[in-house]
Amino acid sequence: MFKSLVPKNDVFYELFGQISANLVEGVQTLVQMLSQCGGYDEHAVRLKSLEHQTDQLVHAIMSHLHKTFITPIEREDIHQLAVRLDDILDLAEAASSRIDLYRPCNVPREAQELSQVLLESVKLVREMIGLLPDMKKRKRIMELTVEINRLEDQADYIRRSTLARLFREEKDPFELIKWKDILEYIERATDRCEDVADITEGIVLENT
Amino acid sequence: MFKSLVPKNDVFYELFGQISANLVEGVQTLVQMLSQCGGYDEHAVRLKSLEHQTDQLVHAIMSHLHKTFITPIEREDIHQLAVRLDDILDLAEAASSRIDLYRPCNVPREAQELSQVLLESVKLVREMIGLLPDMKKRKRIMELTVEINRLEDQADYIRRSTLARLFREEKDPFELIKWKDILEYIERATDRCEDVADITEGIVLENT
Amino acid sequence: MFKSLVPKNDVFYELFGQISANLVEGVQTLVQMLSQCGGYDEHAVRLKSLEHQTDQLVHAIMSHLHKTFITPIEREDIHQLAVRLDDILDLAEAASSRIDLYRPCNVPREAQELSQVLLESVKLVREMIGLLPDMKKRKRIMELTVEINRLEDQADYIRRSTLARLFREEKDPFELIKWKDILEYIERATDRCEDVADITEGIVLENT
Repeated sequence: MFKSLVPKNDVFYELFGQISANLVEGVQTLVQMLSQCGGYDEHAVRLKSLEHQTDQLVHAIMSHLHKTFITPIEREDIHQLAVRLDDILDLAEAASSRIDLYRPCNVPREAQELSQVLLESVKLVREMIGLLPDMKKRKRIMELTVEINRLEDQADYIRRSTLARLFREEKDPFELIKWKDILEYIERATDRCEDVADITEGIVLENT
Repeated sequence: MFKSLVPKNDVFYELFGQISANLVEGVQTLVQMLSQCGGYDEHAVRLKSLEHQTDQLVHAIMSHLHKTFITPIEREDIHQLAVRLDDILDLAEAASSRIDLYRPCNVPREAQELSQVLLESVKLVREMIGLLPDMKKRKRIMELTVEINRLEDQADYIRRSTLARLFREEKDPFELIKWKDILEYIERATDRCEDVADITEGIVLENT
Repeated sequence: MFKSLVPKNDVFYELFGQISANLVEGVQTLVQMLSQCGGYDEHAVRLKSLEHQTDQLVHAIMSHLHKTFITPIEREDIHQLAVRLDDILDLAEAASSRIDLYRPCNVPREAQELSQVLLESVKLVREMIGLLPDMKKRKRIMELTVEINRLEDQADYIRRSTLARLFREEKDPFELIKWKDILEYIERATDRCEDVADITEGIVLENT
């Protein structure tokens, strides 16, 4: 196969930029879903479509990777970054699909709070990905990693305490199972944001 | 340690071939388990034994990897492929063990459907692994990846909609928890098939 | 960035040693939690604090990795080892936090047994990590891997059979959900011990 010798860094950064834009839009949809009653199916369809688009962007990154000899970032890091970014949206989509399918009775206010934390986190992830091309904002990258880690801690705390509350207060085991599932997907999405932050920090440390 | 300089590609391909044959047999056992009532323990024992055999085949690949200087495929890819193939059978075994242990009352017909989708998927995985030695069937490899991805989507859809139905119709929370667990293991096995397809596609793209 | 050319192997081994000491202490705390009624919050706080300390040790390993040109072990292996060791403690902490938050009614005796198996396993992990600096105890490393694998099998068996028993005997679905969760975290911690054993064995095989 012909592999390009001249690095076309722009293509990777462009694709990563589109993925992180989709990510923010997807999580905004999830936040809306949890803040209003009903209209679940429309939002779930929107998130599913963003997830499919993002799959194709990830696939484009992989194809480009196989056709390029010299990459701006280590191949393995590009691969990991694409996979992990994709994971975040997959988990947000999984949460939205459960909300649509389970039609849980009452949205606990902590679920809204948790989705807001995820939204903050993916916005920081988008900023971080946007800083990759120049590799000079080392200090800002470090700050973002710390902040994304803090949000992950906060999300974990919200999930744990909400579940403890539901175990005390919820009378219907089916409702508890539904929310346990949904909260887990959202919280795992913040875990994947932390992974992306770690990978990105690693890339910047290696290259400066 | 003495490391062989001459690549013995055959050993790797032979072992991968045996693993994917075990995989298909294991999932066939799972399909049978879900299509008949009772006889669960025999099938569960059969799957457990296939899982152990496969662990040893994976171990043989790892040992051979450490004794070989030049490998037909990148070391990391051989490692990943072995681990992911093993994961598929582990998940099928986990599902069969839950069926045996929980003795759920009625098998939802969708559980059979889901196991059939997994069976189709592992058959395609076996075909894909069988194509590795010549690395020339690039087009067929691409088709298989697309098809395995489609089956994963289908499995995900079946799991989600079955769970939504159980949440609406099942009166016994214990039964719902059991099936939620079992369906998840089967669906995660189709996810791992997708991973194997991605890794295999990557190997072929790198080597052609 | 200035990268040291002279390997300072001691730093890595020192940090790994501290992490595995924290691991053993953390799991001892979990065992205590499950053997006495009450006092849950104190133990949970202790485990949370060990988890935070360990995060910082992992971070120190990563920083040191980025500042070192020549590492005693392959970079990727150091990275994987640190991440997997960290996972074990994260899962033990997750279990302890659930015990504290859910305040389940009666501790099944199998939960104590399961935590003891995990304790045995992390002690063997600590021994294994301690053998890394000389790389000569090949035979002992192999024995430890076999034994850690056996403990993982045992943990899996305990979890499965306990769950089967609870499905038969437990009348309260909320209690079953709580213990299903807690047992899963502890068992997954033994899985991660197996991962650490595999990585460590791989390192020794590569280097002898």
